[in-house]
Amino acid sequence: MKHYRIATIPGDGIGKEVLPAARAVLDRVGRHHGLSLAYDEFDWSCERYLAEGSMMPEDGLDRIRHHDSVLLGAVGRPGVPDHVSLWGLLIPIRRGFRQYVNLRPITVLEGVPSPVSRALPGEVDLVVVRENNEGEYSQVGGRIFEGTPEETVVQESVFTRRGVERVLEYAFDLAGRRGGRLTSATKSNGIVHTMPFWDELVAERAAEHPDVSWDQEHIDALAAKIVLDPARFDVIVGSNLFGDILSDLAAAVAGGIGVAPSANLNPEREFPSMFEPVHGSAPDIAGRGLANPLGAIWSASMMLDHLGHAEAGAQVMDAVRGVLASSPVRTADLGGTAGTDEFTGEVLSRLP
Amino acid sequence: MKHYRIATIPGDGIGKEVLPAARAVLDRVGRHHGLSLAYDEFDWSCERYLAEGSMMPEDGLDRIRHHDSVLLGAVGRPGVPDHVSLWGLLIPIRRGFRQYVNLRPITVLEGVPSPVSRALPGEVDLVVVRENNEGEYSQVGGRIFEGTPEETVVQESVFTRRGVERVLEYAFDLAGRRGGRLTSATKSNGIVHTMPFWDELVAERAAEHPDVSWDQEHIDALAAKIVLDPARFDVIVGSNLFGDILSDLAAAVAGGIGVAPSANLNPEREFPSMFEPVHGSAPDIAGRGLANPLGAIWSASMMLDHLGHAEAGAQVMDAVRGVLASSPVRTADLGGTAGTDEFTGEVLSRLP
Ligand SMILES: CC(C)[C@H](C(=O)O)[C@@H](O)C(=O)O
Ligand SMILES: CC(C)[C@H](C(=O)O)[C@@H](O)C(=O)O
Repeated sequence: MKHYRIATIPGDGIGKEVLPAARAVLDRVGRHHGLSLAYDEFDWSCERYLAEGSMMPEDGLDRIRHHDSVLLGAVGRPGVPDHVSLWGLLIPIRRGFRQYVNLRPITVLEGVPSPVSRALPGEVDLVVVRENNEGEYSQVGGRIFEGTPEETVVQESVFTRRGVERVLEYAFDLAGRRGGRLTSATKSNGIVHTMPFWDELVAERAAEHPDVSWDQEHIDALAAKIVLDPARFDVIVGSNLFGDILSDLAAAVAGGIGVAPSANLNPEREFPSMFEPVHGSAPDIAGRGLANPLGAIWSASMMLDHLGHAEAGAQVMDAVRGVLASSPVRTADLGGTAGTDEFTGEVLSRLP
Repeated sequence: MKHYRIATIPGDGIGKEVLPAARAVLDRVGRHHGLSLAYDEFDWSCERYLAEGSMMPEDGLDRIRHHDSVLLGAVGRPGVPDHVSLWGLLIPIRRGFRQYVNLRPITVLEGVPSPVSRALPGEVDLVVVRENNEGEYSQVGGRIFEGTPEETVVQESVFTRRGVERVLEYAFDLAGRRGGRLTSATKSNGIVHTMPFWDELVAERAAEHPDVSWDQEHIDALAAKIVLDPARFDVIVGSNLFGDILSDLAAAVAGGIGVAPSANLNPEREFPSMFEPVHGSAPDIAGRGLANPLGAIWSASMMLDHLGHAEAGAQVMDAVRGVLASSPVRTADLGGTAGTDEFTGEVLSRLP
């Protein structure tokens, strides 16, 4: 029996509905594989912020530092500015636990319609590797001459050799284990300090990975190509901002903006990694049992993978694929009438 | 007879093939409208850079400062780094002539197939208004600890009240004259200095334009929505980088990455504005008469519009639409067999 202690942060809105679904799936598949999964739930959320003035306690990170991983639902709530919920919870965890890889697999699942006619199941299967700790997301910067016609605001992007190298290394390594192709997102024609540096480090890493064939594309052209020919991509690596944009875009192309998973990884396993669906808290449908739990379930499958139980993770995704491909059971966002529980039940029924 | 003096910069590759096409169209429609158009051609290009060490002469801007507008083909050539061709020509013109609006209309033309099944002719008709002078494209920044493990590179984004206000004012005004809807591209959840400032100024401008209904979307979600539901957008306004990404993306969604036009506008008309197709110099097909001149022709139509000849501009686009909708004549990128001249001839034959 392997024992794992998982910190769960349901968060806000539908986060609280999809997380139990992910847990149910984990429990079922875990039992089959001899895993004992214990959960500690934390109420860190915008609700907590409104009641107590902070998204999480001061010593929040310490409370979950020794857990095996973190499962997060979604944060965000009307009335709480996005930057509060993010810089008060998500970003401190990503940085504090050196989760410098944000991994976002994009696959067209049979039964999930894509808006792009060429995005077919079995053909589009890519992974966006996003730098998750530095870059364009930085607190450095500020304002001068506030409120006057001369008001000027500066924002620093900070790229470090160590920070860029490690995420590139992860991406090249992943490409080597997958289809052997890597595309780097750049904008070295317009962003003249950080992006040429990024390109240099890509070329350096590439020299160490002769097994991987690689190219680079400016972010504007790359966004276009993801729509025009999504099947050509294998691993796409990008900075914090570019990875953020491209992963949402690619998920939309695959029809899966509401079902996409993500993993915030600390590859060295010095700290827990965090798994979260890409979707938000969806206040418009929250509390009604309508949320699609697939993003959370898929994220849980990535967690199993990260914990070393690839077979269990694959079984979860096989069950999900089975439901979508051969049953009419799906939630409203995918054109069905099922609620969260019914869909989850259908997935559970296909697990060993 | 109205007289205009146009500076033409064919540039590199297919730039030299599409510019004559645009001129032929301008001449024909100009004659009909009593316009006398004189051209001065400048050889500013990567070729010039390789031969003489600079993309344009030191006093380049002075040489075209008194022209009525600038028509540019494309710049870029293998062997010349992109940042050289851009910071040596395109960006100095955009900044030097305060062309702070980059205007990119995106329309699905009948006869141009779109990769997105919901992007239908007559339904997708949007304009991206991109800030074109400041923001993320900045020379400010640099490196420290070069070549060591501590190497760190910083890049400053600079947003000024004046710079943001004027482009927003243009965008709200344009939305008021069009469908009355404006979407602002932001990322104030992640980019915590400049983007909240951008949002504030959007809200300020919006208060002055009660006729325009507006919203804002984070760039990642917006990129996804442009794929999922392109018809919902009217005017999209974004920073230099976000506008760059979104306009290429939207052009791809409309099937028109190779036919998209752009205008770099100095709305106050203190300086000439510049009109250029969005496509690049396409070295792979250059010199063979295969280039699609539609982007250049469409850009020329925007120039007529800017010079106050909206009817002439509309006639050009009517002719283009006519060719695509009711003839098989089109270039290879659109699935046809016509060359640049044949396509241009077909457009000319439909002009009065
Ligand atoms: C070539 C590049 C610097 C340029 C830009 O980003 O401005 C181009 O993409 C454009 O949109 O005109
Ligand atoms: C909410 C936002 C700050 C966040 C990000 O940009 O990192 C989100 O879009 C994501 O991708 O997890």
